[in-house]
Amino acid sequence: MSEVIEKGKLAKKASYQIGICTTEEKNNALLKIADGLRANEKAILAANHLDIQAGREKGLSESLLDRVELTKERIHDIADAILQIIDLADPIGEVLETIEKDNGLKIVNTRVPIGVVGMIYEARPNVTVDAATLAIKTGNAIILRGSSSAIHSNLAIVKVIHEAMAESAVIPDSVQLIEDTSRETAGELFRLNDYLDVLIPRGGKNLIDTVVRESRVPVIETGAGNCHVFIDDTANFEMAKEITLNAKLQRPSVCNAIESLLIQSDWFDKYGNDLISSLIENGITVHGDERVFEEIPFVQPATEADWETEYLGLEISVKTVQDVYEAIDHINTYGTKHSEAIITEDENHAEVFKQKVDATTVYHNASTRFTDGFEFGFGAEIGISTQKLHARGPMGLKALTSNKFIVSGDGQIRE
Amino acid sequence: MSEVIEKGKLAKKASYQIGICTTEEKNNALLKIADGLRANEKAILAANHLDIQAGREKGLSESLLDRVELTKERIHDIADAILQIIDLADPIGEVLETIEKDNGLKIVNTRVPIGVVGMIYEARPNVTVDAATLAIKTGNAIILRGSSSAIHSNLAIVKVIHEAMAESAVIPDSVQLIEDTSRETAGELFRLNDYLDVLIPRGGKNLIDTVVRESRVPVIETGAGNCHVFIDDTANFEMAKEITLNAKLQRPSVCNAIESLLIQSDWFDKYGNDLISSLIENGITVHGDERVFEEIPFVQPATEADWETEYLGLEISVKTVQDVYEAIDHINTYGTKHSEAIITEDENHAEVFKQKVDATTVYHNASTRFTDGFEFGFGAEIGISTQKLHARGPMGLKALTSNKFIVSGDGQIRE
Repeated sequence: MSEVIEKGKLAKKASYQIGICTTEEKNNALLKIADGLRANEKAILAANHLDIQAGREKGLSESLLDRVELTKERIHDIADAILQIIDLADPIGEVLETIEKDNGLKIVNTRVPIGVVGMIYEARPNVTVDAATLAIKTGNAIILRGSSSAIHSNLAIVKVIHEAMAESAVIPDSVQLIEDTSRETAGELFRLNDYLDVLIPRGGKNLIDTVVRESRVPVIETGAGNCHVFIDDTANFEMAKEITLNAKLQRPSVCNAIESLLIQSDWFDKYGNDLISSLIENGITVHGDERVFEEIPFVQPATEADWETEYLGLEISVKTVQDVYEAIDHINTYGTKHSEAIITEDENHAEVFKQKVDATTVYHNASTRFTDGFEFGFGAEIGISTQKLHARGPMGLKALTSNKFIVSGDGQIRE
Repeated sequence: MSEVIEKGKLAKKASYQIGICTTEEKNNALLKIADGLRANEKAILAANHLDIQAGREKGLSESLLDRVELTKERIHDIADAILQIIDLADPIGEVLETIEKDNGLKIVNTRVPIGVVGMIYEARPNVTVDAATLAIKTGNAIILRGSSSAIHSNLAIVKVIHEAMAESAVIPDSVQLIEDTSRETAGELFRLNDYLDVLIPRGGKNLIDTVVRESRVPVIETGAGNCHVFIDDTANFEMAKEITLNAKLQRPSVCNAIESLLIQSDWFDKYGNDLISSLIENGITVHGDERVFEEIPFVQPATEADWETEYLGLEISVKTVQDVYEAIDHINTYGTKHSEAIITEDENHAEVFKQKVDATTVYHNASTRFTDGFEFGFGAEIGISTQKLHARGPMGLKALTSNKFIVSGDGQIRE
């Protein structure tokens, strides 16, 4: 039997046990894991060092190595995050609705764990802990398939998790790490419908596209963010500038950073030069439409491809538009339905934008950078869903739950 | 451009218009459709007659022809069902949660339409109306891909729907029927991610398996039901017999009918013969485990395959078990997680069964035949989801919705 199928079976079996653990039992296991990570800090750092060495030998980029690297401080942050998860309310068992029928049947729709969650992710070993602990809190078993670049770290972390769980009432088999990080094991997960209820990919566009294309297991698509700020004719200059710079520069590599700026043409007449110059002064390459290219120095001409590109770096596309309707059309055509902002003093335009833009999160006079489980107050985040089904936007604990109808009767039959 | 892509584009564009229609506008369109169906009854019946003729020539089974066939009465029932949908509350615009942050950001999570829903289904032309009207009520565009056996009926029905919508504020393009019912158009729908937000298959196991296996568009799996009744040691004989016969016989061809009966062995000693004889007297073929086969006349021996089989007809498998735990294990191993019942006077056993059985709906002392949107009081049903994501169990209007976070600020940026 292959490793994936074997661990799938173990996880499925374990899911029936963890699924009925009490909140106290699950929190107790989480506390032991947090303690275990701190106590085994040296072993984890030693394993992480092996990954970093191997990565250097393979010539991985510094930014990738940075994502793989753990430090004493990072391990303590990870352990602290577990304490936050412990403090969150347990969603399992929540009554979603109660229906009493005339025939005496009582139907109670109850929140239950999903069952077995699969996670395919890249580089960062903290995802191993985040995903495992969120799964434990919600009574799910989880199968983790990280990347080869962090395999030593992941093995060391899961060893600590298993040892901690062995001293708790939660069965260690509910956390499974696939040790074989070859392409074949990802493919096996795509076909693991018998044991897997959902597959969540976290990583770059290629990874997510592959999972969506090939998986037969239901997928929650996360990630890609071709986000826009639209500056309307009545926008306040200072606010527009601050939000644009923040949304682009505060952390350019993440999905809720903006990639494209739309400017109403009258506003552009007045402030376009000032705003775009400040972008360029901040080291950003600007790809402008014909008008922007012709009127502002140091601007590159934008091609059709620019409107679709998620640069994830110090680049931005800029387009002038006639009005809010043209902006909405452009966003709904080229955006990835992640986070979109309008800067305006016109409440009617703000309303139209909020209603018509198709995205997980729509902002009026605020930076797109707030689309995040922690910022929204969910306490923890398993990812940001960009699909319409199941969960949309930042996903907290509830995204890892399903429901069950429990019906009590005294002999009712259907006529 | 292929028909599917062309209609996908039209539906996507229409989705932005129907998505912001008011409840009154949508209900008005629905009323005109109901009137239109009644007024064009003759044209619809004539088209349906062509399907029935063609089906006879192709040698379709009588049960399939019955599902294709429309009558004056059926058309009136379909129109009446639309009036029920009009009476249901519109879920769109519902505020799901409001979050106020310390920095002054106000986050409102709002219920919105999914966007464009795809429906692949077999035979029954009433699904054309049900799906289109549920989509309209929830502000979604819909792409309908019915089967060739009902194409004349579907064309006539959609013509009436389009004519009715043309006299309303809801754009007719939000309902699209794929006229080419070849295998290729189904394949195109599987890859229509750019224009389609969800694909719902309704039909036999083959259809559903194909959609789950091949679709890159998120799927809501519906349907298969290998359902069980478990009779516990304390079960009342009369109640156990009535529920078993109802769950098997009231409509054997549907997904919430039972396919398998589990009997606690002490109860079997006392009542097994009476119960199973009554099944056989009702024309049911019984496939029994070793004990049932040896002790009861006219029983066939069950094979491993019987525990997995959804007969959808006058057959049942019967197994004796030691206790409720063995019953739960068997159900979680062989069931399709649809509807499962325990008959018992022991409240503890009922609790364990409700908690541990993994299914959309779990019954205590009632027939599995109640798993149904109408019976649950949802008023309408787009199908019964057997997956854990998005919607589980009978799906009403809310299953055709998603959510959007609307954030209002006054210049907030992320530090």
